[in-house]
Amino acid sequence: MVSSLKRFLIGRPLKSTELGEQKLNKTKALAILSSDALSSVAYGPEQILLVLITISAVAFWYSVPIAIGVLILLTALILSYRQIIFAYPHGGGAYIVSKTNLGTNPGLVAGGSLLVDYILTVAVSVSAGTDAITSAFPALHEYNVMIAIIFVVLLTLLNLRGVTESASLLAYPVYLFILALFILIGAGLFRIAAGEVPPELHTPVGTPVAGISLFILLRAFASGSSALTGVEAISNAIPNFKSPAPANAAKTLTAMGFLLALLFSGIVYLAYYYGITPLAEVTVVSQIAEETFGRTFMYFFVQGTTALILILAANTGYSAFPLLAVNLAKDKFIPRMFTIRGDRLGYSNGIVILGFASILLIIVFGGHTESLIPLYAVGVFIPFTLSQTGMMVKWLREKPKGWAVKFVINTIGALISFVVTIVFFLTKFAQVWPVLVFLPIIIYLFHRINLHYEAVGDQLRMTTCEPAIPIEGNIIIVPVSGITHVVENSLNYAKSLSPERIIAVYVAFEREDEKRFEEKWNKWQPDVRLVTLHSQYRSIIQPLTKFVDTVEHKANESNYQVTVLIPQFIPKKGWHHFLHNQSSLLIRAFLLYRRNVVVTTVPYHLKK
Amino acid sequence: MVSSLKRFLIGRPLKSTELGEQKLNKTKALAILSSDALSSVAYGPEQILLVLITISAVAFWYSVPIAIGVLILLTALILSYRQIIFAYPHGGGAYIVSKTNLGTNPGLVAGGSLLVDYILTVAVSVSAGTDAITSAFPALHEYNVMIAIIFVVLLTLLNLRGVTESASLLAYPVYLFILALFILIGAGLFRIAAGEVPPELHTPVGTPVAGISLFILLRAFASGSSALTGVEAISNAIPNFKSPAPANAAKTLTAMGFLLALLFSGIVYLAYYYGITPLAEVTVVSQIAEETFGRTFMYFFVQGTTALILILAANTGYSAFPLLAVNLAKDKFIPRMFTIRGDRLGYSNGIVILGFASILLIIVFGGHTESLIPLYAVGVFIPFTLSQTGMMVKWLREKPKGWAVKFVINTIGALISFVVTIVFFLTKFAQVWPVLVFLPIIIYLFHRINLHYEAVGDQLRMTTCEPAIPIEGNIIIVPVSGITHVVENSLNYAKSLSPERIIAVYVAFEREDEKRFEEKWNKWQPDVRLVTLHSQYRSIIQPLTKFVDTVEHKANESNYQVTVLIPQFIPKKGWHHFLHNQSSLLIRAFLLYRRNVVVTTVPYHLKK
Repeated sequence: MVSSLKRFLIGRPLKSTELGEQKLNKTKALAILSSDALSSVAYGPEQILLVLITISAVAFWYSVPIAIGVLILLTALILSYRQIIFAYPHGGGAYIVSKTNLGTNPGLVAGGSLLVDYILTVAVSVSAGTDAITSAFPALHEYNVMIAIIFVVLLTLLNLRGVTESASLLAYPVYLFILALFILIGAGLFRIAAGEVPPELHTPVGTPVAGISLFILLRAFASGSSALTGVEAISNAIPNFKSPAPANAAKTLTAMGFLLALLFSGIVYLAYYYGITPLAEVTVVSQIAEETFGRTFMYFFVQGTTALILILAANTGYSAFPLLAVNLAKDKFIPRMFTIRGDRLGYSNGIVILGFASILLIIVFGGHTESLIPLYAVGVFIPFTLSQTGMMVKWLREKPKGWAVKFVINTIGALISFVVTIVFFLTKFAQVWPVLVFLPIIIYLFHRINLHYEAVGDQLRMTTCEPAIPIEGNIIIVPVSGITHVVENSLNYAKSLSPERIIAVYVAFEREDEKRFEEKWNKWQPDVRLVTLHSQYRSIIQPLTKFVDTVEHKANESNYQVTVLIPQFIPKKGWHHFLHNQSSLLIRAFLLYRRNVVVTTVPYHLKK
Repeated sequence: MVSSLKRFLIGRPLKSTELGEQKLNKTKALAILSSDALSSVAYGPEQILLVLITISAVAFWYSVPIAIGVLILLTALILSYRQIIFAYPHGGGAYIVSKTNLGTNPGLVAGGSLLVDYILTVAVSVSAGTDAITSAFPALHEYNVMIAIIFVVLLTLLNLRGVTESASLLAYPVYLFILALFILIGAGLFRIAAGEVPPELHTPVGTPVAGISLFILLRAFASGSSALTGVEAISNAIPNFKSPAPANAAKTLTAMGFLLALLFSGIVYLAYYYGITPLAEVTVVSQIAEETFGRTFMYFFVQGTTALILILAANTGYSAFPLLAVNLAKDKFIPRMFTIRGDRLGYSNGIVILGFASILLIIVFGGHTESLIPLYAVGVFIPFTLSQTGMMVKWLREKPKGWAVKFVINTIGALISFVVTIVFFLTKFAQVWPVLVFLPIIIYLFHRINLHYEAVGDQLRMTTCEPAIPIEGNIIIVPVSGITHVVENSLNYAKSLSPERIIAVYVAFEREDEKRFEEKWNKWQPDVRLVTLHSQYRSIIQPLTKFVDTVEHKANESNYQVTVLIPQFIPKKGWHHFLHNQSSLLIRAFLLYRRNVVVTTVPYHLKK
């Protein structure tokens, strides 16, 4: 039943050889990997205005030069990530680049912050999308958390189904959003060209502004560059592309860069020209759309696709997180289970854990995850800085043909990213300090896990050869609870192994019982030695373990192996298990994990 | 760590022989077993007035004859339960009596409704007590559910510590409550005798009342008799008494009956004489206390002890539920685990499950469990009726000396209980109908469980002797994941058992891997046959199970036993388990429960 539900939700299992068919073409990849970056157009320009309004509406013209700054940063990032894609065609992005060129710890800083960042991406963008929906239908507002969780579950299921299938479904809203914004920007520019927008709505660029400071401008710039989160997603996901993967990924990245640049500058320009002031209840995009179209179909089209893409932005996290996790797991910094492909060839453990973690965040923050946005932005700019510094080192070290240009591009990218990171810490410390707490913790955990895996590897490897101690003979201990077919079955099995000795052990809670049982036993199995143990605390495990210890101690002297053979009857139906105490499981766990004995379970299947 | 926390919370384990010391003397038993019954004085009289007020305050005088009716019922119940105690000195109350005299199903109806009732007792009385406390401190009101849960947890821990210890702690509040009410009633009667209470406050008994009907009076009577819930607790808990248990139990029951009668009639009389009208915010007892003492220390003493005893009333559930569960479990109607004594000799499974179930009820009803009171009352009167009908049958059947008197007592008790039950259904159907749903379900479950246990017993018993098939030889299958010390260790063990054949099985996900492994293996273990299986769905279990099936099929023909020997390395620390996939556990569960193979786990303990 569970497995047919699973089939229904995520589809039939796929063969490993079907992996190629699951790869993305450019159109789908653009939809699936850039929803995060593109969706930030919906709030990036607003973030700039929100900082400038703290001075006065006169300062709004600064949004134009700031936007140009953001565009330069975007260009630097896109150019830089193109270089990364070709230099590291197996993907991994910031983590691989930083690790290879700067060393393990910078790599782990980049990897760790991205890992957490993708969880934040999912939580933040789903919450934002839910907010957009419940703003339209206020009656749903009190179910915000529940709705957000349902979206996360749906996205998780979609991603468990596999990338191509989710891409097909997710492509529409992304392209509709792009279309809607292009229409909006086109119509807006047309109105401006036609002189329908009075120019006195905005202050001309260059108007002197009282009280403006470098701090404010940097802060506005940092806020605006939060629109660039998600740019790195493509470089992490190269293995998901159809071959030639790097070329396709690079083209997709460039296309995304152009789209993002056009949409971002269009919105910033319209906001500036329309003289729009950010409001608590109405978003900037919504104001522009209303100004341009009035409350017509187009207005609702823009609003609807915006809400959708905010939710789908989460999908970028679903594409990038599992792949980054695979890279970290291959390097043994996180549990190996992240490298296992599920039934549908996706890295399902990563997908499921991402879903759980973001649901947890949504619940803990009660759906109000806006306060996480700066944290999330800084978590992106740290790996941006590291990966581009890594590329600088690479060019300096390898000096391939034309390296100087490449070096300059990455240096510019690294510098701007670094400045943005510092500005975040300087201007929004109250919101970004947790990064300084959780990054060291995560990196410590990475190292602990790595240490363990290395230690295990060392101990298992046959090269470090301490010869195995030969087993001279076997002693089998059979805990018995009565004179039944189950016990008979187990004793038969034990005898068939012809061990040196079989010892049946009976744990009695009462003295009379002890005697009675011994008598019965001697009649029934006179050839099997019975040891009865008295348990005054009504525990079976304690006296049994003590006894096993004694036997093992003696057995060790003559290189005998002790096996505890547990008779177990298996009920016919699952719910029957509740009706029987699970002492055999407990005994097994206890002995196997704490003592050096082999544990054998002999099943006796009940027929009704 | 877990075990030392357990020690701290519930104390050191006790030896089975210390059981006698855990028994209750009469004083403690009265406190621990009658808190439910006595606490109902706090709301029973009010229930009567709440029905009468629907006519008019003039009708209040009817509370006096109704109270007399309740006292008659109480007398009948006490006399009847005294007879039950002596007739069934091993306890079990309504369940045992009904089962023995009326048959299994009536017994199960009685047992099932009491089982559910004790859960309701805990939920209802803890919620009521919490309400009393948070009424005094309104700031705490929003934490009602949390506070109620904490009380349930505390009661659960107390009961896990054991009855005598909890009795010592719980005796004080019960006796203080009795003391407080006696002082209240004494002072009230003194004031009346001294003429301090104007007689015009109440209408004289016998005043004609317009609109009064038999229906109303019956309803008031039924409501009033909800004060009698808990009367049966002592008869269920006879095994908890010091010997001579039946005599001590009977004396305790009689004492409880007297106390209950005195307190109940005192409160009803004072309420009537003072002309008290039930109010939404102030309880009747509180009004009487304020009238009598003003807002003095005594007023708060009465209120405080009332709140306490309401919470402690839950303890009656804790005493009676586990013992009733033992009886049902001994008869194989509920899981056997209820018969197991915990570290402190209490039936800890029953105690813990009662705690969980009532916490669940409190959460589901958000702490507003008042609406469950009628359900709870009817759940008591059904077993009352059944047990006394059972006693009637017993007297008729056995006819011991003086049986006629006994028969009459039980007949009166049975009739009144039956009438009360019917009245509940007629007058409060909207609240008591769930009984008609859950009772059949519970009884169906009882029978299903019983059927299963009987079937298991039949199959295990050696008397039904189909001779075991002899094992002619052994085939050992060793799933291997690589060339490691763990596998080496397992192969050594397998060889030491000198089976007819050892087959190593390797599941490969890729074709190249398959070949490479075979070559390595043949160099390493040329004498052990290796079978490689290709898994196109990346599952280890599926191809392995298929292979085991094939081997088993062949082995069956020649009575060979198949053993799957799983090499497992055991990490040194608990958290390391998260870092390794638990495929060995999965394989084991899958093979053991679905296939007829022996599963052996050979541990390889890592040293770091």
